[in-house]
Amino acid sequence: MTLINENFLNLTNNYLFSDVANKVKAYKACHPSAEVISLGIGDVTQPLPLVSVDAMKQAVEEMGCPKTFRGYGPEQGYDFLIDAIIRNDYLPRGIKLKPNEVFISDGAKSDCGNIGDIFDSCNSVGMTDPVYPVYADSNMMCGRTITYLPCNIANDFVPSLPDKKLDIIYLCYPNNPTGTVLTKAELKRWVDYALLNDSLIIYDGAYEAYIQEPQIPHSIYEIDGATLCAIELRSFSKTAGFTGVRCGYTVVPEELTASTRHGERISLNHLWNRRQCTKFNGTSYITQRGAEAIYTPEGQKQVKQVIGYYMQNARLMKDSLIDMGYRVAGGENAPYLWVKIPDSVSSWQFFDRMLNEAQVVVTPGLGFGASGDGYIRLTAFGQQEDCLKAMRRMKHVKM
Amino acid sequence: MTLINENFLNLTNNYLFSDVANKVKAYKACHPSAEVISLGIGDVTQPLPLVSVDAMKQAVEEMGCPKTFRGYGPEQGYDFLIDAIIRNDYLPRGIKLKPNEVFISDGAKSDCGNIGDIFDSCNSVGMTDPVYPVYADSNMMCGRTITYLPCNIANDFVPSLPDKKLDIIYLCYPNNPTGTVLTKAELKRWVDYALLNDSLIIYDGAYEAYIQEPQIPHSIYEIDGATLCAIELRSFSKTAGFTGVRCGYTVVPEELTASTRHGERISLNHLWNRRQCTKFNGTSYITQRGAEAIYTPEGQKQVKQVIGYYMQNARLMKDSLIDMGYRVAGGENAPYLWVKIPDSVSSWQFFDRMLNEAQVVVTPGLGFGASGDGYIRLTAFGQQEDCLKAMRRMKHVKM
Repeated sequence: MTLINENFLNLTNNYLFSDVANKVKAYKACHPSAEVISLGIGDVTQPLPLVSVDAMKQAVEEMGCPKTFRGYGPEQGYDFLIDAIIRNDYLPRGIKLKPNEVFISDGAKSDCGNIGDIFDSCNSVGMTDPVYPVYADSNMMCGRTITYLPCNIANDFVPSLPDKKLDIIYLCYPNNPTGTVLTKAELKRWVDYALLNDSLIIYDGAYEAYIQEPQIPHSIYEIDGATLCAIELRSFSKTAGFTGVRCGYTVVPEELTASTRHGERISLNHLWNRRQCTKFNGTSYITQRGAEAIYTPEGQKQVKQVIGYYMQNARLMKDSLIDMGYRVAGGENAPYLWVKIPDSVSSWQFFDRMLNEAQVVVTPGLGFGASGDGYIRLTAFGQQEDCLKAMRRMKHVKM
Repeated sequence: MTLINENFLNLTNNYLFSDVANKVKAYKACHPSAEVISLGIGDVTQPLPLVSVDAMKQAVEEMGCPKTFRGYGPEQGYDFLIDAIIRNDYLPRGIKLKPNEVFISDGAKSDCGNIGDIFDSCNSVGMTDPVYPVYADSNMMCGRTITYLPCNIANDFVPSLPDKKLDIIYLCYPNNPTGTVLTKAELKRWVDYALLNDSLIIYDGAYEAYIQEPQIPHSIYEIDGATLCAIELRSFSKTAGFTGVRCGYTVVPEELTASTRHGERISLNHLWNRRQCTKFNGTSYITQRGAEAIYTPEGQKQVKQVIGYYMQNARLMKDSLIDMGYRVAGGENAPYLWVKIPDSVSSWQFFDRMLNEAQVVVTPGLGFGASGDGYIRLTAFGQQEDCLKAMRRMKHVKM
């Protein structure tokens, strides 16, 4: 008799985004002429950088010619992309990685979900609350126990170190959904905790390209000792508009190890390589050429331009919201604003009123965890005129 | 203390293909002018169909324009591709699938590796020997016990039904590496076994496009009752030269269920959907447009032409090998030939002699499992003139 993985039955169905979509749909059906502006969706809207478009068109051409056709690529990704990543994303920050420490994938969501394969299901796991739901769900799927570390106005959205030993800790900075960052000193406390407790940090840097302040760390490997206790995930999704193209990468340092039950230390780089070679077959050659192109000088310019556009949205929105009297986190080194709403309303009530009275779609914070109630998330990925118009409309909704 | 998944330590490092590569490299270093022909590699060599090239170039263009840019797509794949699959791959064979029963992915290897997530690790697993190593390794990674079903000349490479109950059974037809197929009657015996024993069949149809004989089933759903006991994997890799582009799909019928430990039946379609929505973020829009294009009349023509070319190689090689006195399986409905070698040599000795005396690279069968010793695998994916030349050379090697 085939048995299912019963851990799946413990997953809560997260209806947040489909509930949001249904409510918006219903509103539009009743108000067909209403111009609804969405600040809820966590997806980019600007097209791909032209360097990537050109590189991918050329790669497609190559794949159509007998002499330049490429079949299976390396499961770990092509050297041309790995080298570009090491030279551009790490070396300028003083981090020296070897090519076999970087694994190209079809996106950070896959890596983030799949990395759990190489760990025992009895490890205890820690993560912030609110949080990107994939960390929680992928660990619940293999039965791990999760400890949530609340982030709220009281602690300025900086999670406290756990009061017990946790084996695996997820950190995402710049943070989704709060848009906050960690300073080097704050991040160092986590690395020190991990080294002291033989814990592993899974550091999600999907939004690092949005960091504006020079002193904020882009990589956990800027902290001494982190290569002994951290895996880092990165993505081209928000950096270069690749949400529909799918490319990311994961760094697993050669010297990083974890333990068997008998105390033997095992290389996590070897385990992840074995996992990827067995259950993954590499990322599209065309995609990898598109990602490589953003590391050219012209590519860097194009990428910075788009990020600058989104970050201008973030600033405009943050200023307006503060003017309206809201307390707003994020939006300075991240494309997300995390807005404290009045205690008199729940995040769903706030959502409903903004939709009905301002025709603006926000994301109720509750969807990111219990500590998210009392907040909403706004994203800076829209068109600038829409962001401004949404702010003007929200101003007229009195809570 | 972070603990690793110790099941990884039970995996044997499969050095077959790297050993082959190293031996070839060493030979070439000593014989720089030798013209070595590889019939070992399981990768296509002909370029992408032009319809796919055109469709992907257009899709790349769309991604570069503000009005046509697409961000995150559905995790399950775009309807345009799902509909094309249902209409072309299934409906003409009398199989009616609903769109939510087809899940597009970045390739059958990923799906084949990841599908195990939704099952309990205590399920017993059966698979043929020789076998595609991913089935074995991905199950060993979560600690499942594997029963191998030998396939050899004695049983004409048709596995016998297990003499005990197995919970999950992997079947790959047309088969890699033996190139053999199952008739409808033979496949029906497996479906009946699965229905009787409440087992699940994972049916890998990656090579179905190579089937030439009209009576051979292309899909397990051609057998009555299979939607109650089978998941089917398909790939564009060998069908349309997508090994470096990455696209495949998995069919999980809505009525397919498996059990909890308390006997409650749970929809596997729901579980796989939850798995994919959590740990996967959809396949590149560009890739999906490339795959869709092969379903146009012109696309079907182009795909058939390339497959015809490879299958002509297979026939030429099979005829030559039989002429030489070898017993050869496969090559009639699959791009693989499975060749019995003389009892006097091991598959590695045969490999060495062919490399040294004929400058032809073959794959030792031992790499696919214990029952593979005594055989070699040849692939039909090369250039025709190379296949013919290799056969002429092999003729002169007397075992």
